[in-house]
Amino acid sequence: MNLNRFGQTVRLAVVGLSCRGTSQIRVLLDMPDVEITSVCDVYPDRVEAACQTIKDARGKEPFHTLDYAECIDRPDVDAAIIMTSWETHIPIAIFAIRHGKRAAIEVGGADSVDACWQLVHASEETGLPVMMLENCCYGDREMALLNMIRQNLFGTLVHCAGSYAHDLRDEIGLGDINRHYRQRHFLHRNAELYPTHELGPIATFLRINHGNRMTMLTSMASKASGLHEWLQKNRPDTELASAQVNEGDVVTTMIRCANGETILLTHDCTLPRAYSRGGVVRGTQGMWMEDGRSIYIEGRSPETPGYWTHRFESDEKYMEEYRHPLWRQYNEIGVRGGHDGMDYLVLRAFIESVQNQTEPPIDVYDTAAWMSITALSESSIAMGSMPVPIPDFTNGRWYNQRKNPAREEFEF
Amino acid sequence: MNLNRFGQTVRLAVVGLSCRGTSQIRVLLDMPDVEITSVCDVYPDRVEAACQTIKDARGKEPFHTLDYAECIDRPDVDAAIIMTSWETHIPIAIFAIRHGKRAAIEVGGADSVDACWQLVHASEETGLPVMMLENCCYGDREMALLNMIRQNLFGTLVHCAGSYAHDLRDEIGLGDINRHYRQRHFLHRNAELYPTHELGPIATFLRINHGNRMTMLTSMASKASGLHEWLQKNRPDTELASAQVNEGDVVTTMIRCANGETILLTHDCTLPRAYSRGGVVRGTQGMWMEDGRSIYIEGRSPETPGYWTHRFESDEKYMEEYRHPLWRQYNEIGVRGGHDGMDYLVLRAFIESVQNQTEPPIDVYDTAAWMSITALSESSIAMGSMPVPIPDFTNGRWYNQRKNPAREEFEF
Repeated sequence: MNLNRFGQTVRLAVVGLSCRGTSQIRVLLDMPDVEITSVCDVYPDRVEAACQTIKDARGKEPFHTLDYAECIDRPDVDAAIIMTSWETHIPIAIFAIRHGKRAAIEVGGADSVDACWQLVHASEETGLPVMMLENCCYGDREMALLNMIRQNLFGTLVHCAGSYAHDLRDEIGLGDINRHYRQRHFLHRNAELYPTHELGPIATFLRINHGNRMTMLTSMASKASGLHEWLQKNRPDTELASAQVNEGDVVTTMIRCANGETILLTHDCTLPRAYSRGGVVRGTQGMWMEDGRSIYIEGRSPETPGYWTHRFESDEKYMEEYRHPLWRQYNEIGVRGGHDGMDYLVLRAFIESVQNQTEPPIDVYDTAAWMSITALSESSIAMGSMPVPIPDFTNGRWYNQRKNPAREEFEF
Repeated sequence: MNLNRFGQTVRLAVVGLSCRGTSQIRVLLDMPDVEITSVCDVYPDRVEAACQTIKDARGKEPFHTLDYAECIDRPDVDAAIIMTSWETHIPIAIFAIRHGKRAAIEVGGADSVDACWQLVHASEETGLPVMMLENCCYGDREMALLNMIRQNLFGTLVHCAGSYAHDLRDEIGLGDINRHYRQRHFLHRNAELYPTHELGPIATFLRINHGNRMTMLTSMASKASGLHEWLQKNRPDTELASAQVNEGDVVTTMIRCANGETILLTHDCTLPRAYSRGGVVRGTQGMWMEDGRSIYIEGRSPETPGYWTHRFESDEKYMEEYRHPLWRQYNEIGVRGGHDGMDYLVLRAFIESVQNQTEPPIDVYDTAAWMSITALSESSIAMGSMPVPIPDFTNGRWYNQRKNPAREEFEF
């Protein structure tokens, strides 16, 4: 990826104009080689606001509609970015590629394994890729860790962990049920609802779908007390106060990989806590842990005398020393966009793949594998934590050398 | 428990005189109401050293032998403390109670669920209790947390986690295979080998076997790379360099409880890292996390503006404020013994239960349930992380009110 130059203009349909859609539009409008020609949402007020934002920035109002099919299936659209509710990402992405448009989808989990296969089949049949916009794969910290891993700082990788640990009770508990897609997931489902912020980076660390793959998982959910107690206290006069909440407060998922590594995921959104993605990287020569920003590298980290000789040190100087080349370049041109600059990078990766007509760095197989974890964890929990196999969406491509120049940032 | 007075003399057989046995003997010799009348080990040099230590302190050599039966089955022995290899704890404890002596065993896991049942049956048939000397149940930090939990600081408890995270490669990798019981476990087994340091305190938090119980678990092991790589590098000229290591570097176990709480255990001894018991307590009103010594209590911990408003704070002042009454008493008389004073407390709890002829605070049901996790995790891993039921060793007593005055420190 080259952040120093812009390419030919990419004309985008943007589907889904909520908070997330709006903030991503602002990032896209910062790119001179991007034109947003078409937008839609099911809510007219959101459409209106997005049109205004685009008009203010570019002097021209985009085509707009309440119908995603109309929004995408237009001659002035090269690609679609889909930022709707979790459950509509896959069907809209399939519609887009079946109508000749490359598609990018925001993060989220799948409702069924079949939906993931449908996405893969549609992509293989049309020859058009689908990219999940997993911004955390482009985080400064995550990419520095990737660099440490590729430079063998941790030795043989053995285990990684991560969480989506974010107290969302007040967002989930908002009164207007229709506009908050999260709420219906928490009330009705019991699953690792949102695995990709941590799993995406871990998948790049472990070369998932590129010489390795996730083979099976088992999930366990705690009881669901946090949101229910919160609703009783904070929404006493609404139906939500007595609503049944199915989503366990802490959902833990253990994943095993073909090469023997394990991945531990935690979904943790309905109890009080500070935010964390709970990252852990374990290898035969070192360890990194997000909580406490701790690192221990054998032979390098200081030792103290006694029985417990090893001491963690701050990861700060390692993050500097191993900053990923892409982030060095990025710091030179100036970090921009939301979420500490990750959003800009992941969107650039998609835009460049459209311009160069290449596979995107996060492809349909990654997207399907990562999203499937939600549906698979749901099955495992429903069956009392039974282990369930994770499909090989690549149908064996994972153990063949796949060349994808757009993955130069991940595969080195 | 009253730390300010000593009772009638308890005459002990001490079985197992390794590092651990020796250090516990020193703690016992500090108690004027304890007499060590009999000792044994399979190694004569250890026996000799222990005899010398006891003679130096008390002017009299104890009876000594290489045979645990001879050591325990004596008229001048009231109770036995068993600090041998993990796999011999249960058979020697059964021997002790079958010969009329109360027994305490050091921590460790079981080889089979049947062995745990045998222990329970022997105790029920003889009417003599068995206590696991889980010192971490008596840690200052663990007891302060228990106090916070009982004072409802965390609200409804939902999830707890803990680890035995201790880089033991150099200990496991020592050349003399016979004297290091750990080594054979790591070479041959693949299990949550050492669950009780974290599980013991968590079991008190969640009132396991006292109104709650552990119902099932599933375990997953990462590949076993850490010890093998270390042996190749550090023991190149020994058989160990090419020894097969079965124990996965990171073994993760998810446990579900009857009341819906989940417990996450991590066994983590063959990769470089700093020591941690990785404690986590999650409730509907707050959270505590050992790594980073962090706490967040709703309505009390400071907030910052923005999307991620919650911030962890140091747990230090909470640990002061909620110090357990037993530890306040302990600080007054002066903390003594190993492992930050925990060893003394757990041994006093056993000695007092012998003096008062009461159930010990950690009883045979707790001991069996905690030890069974090792055998059950081994089964789960062997079957590809299949969920396995955890037996109810109490046969229903867990949901009946059981009165045990010796548990006043835990049940309040």
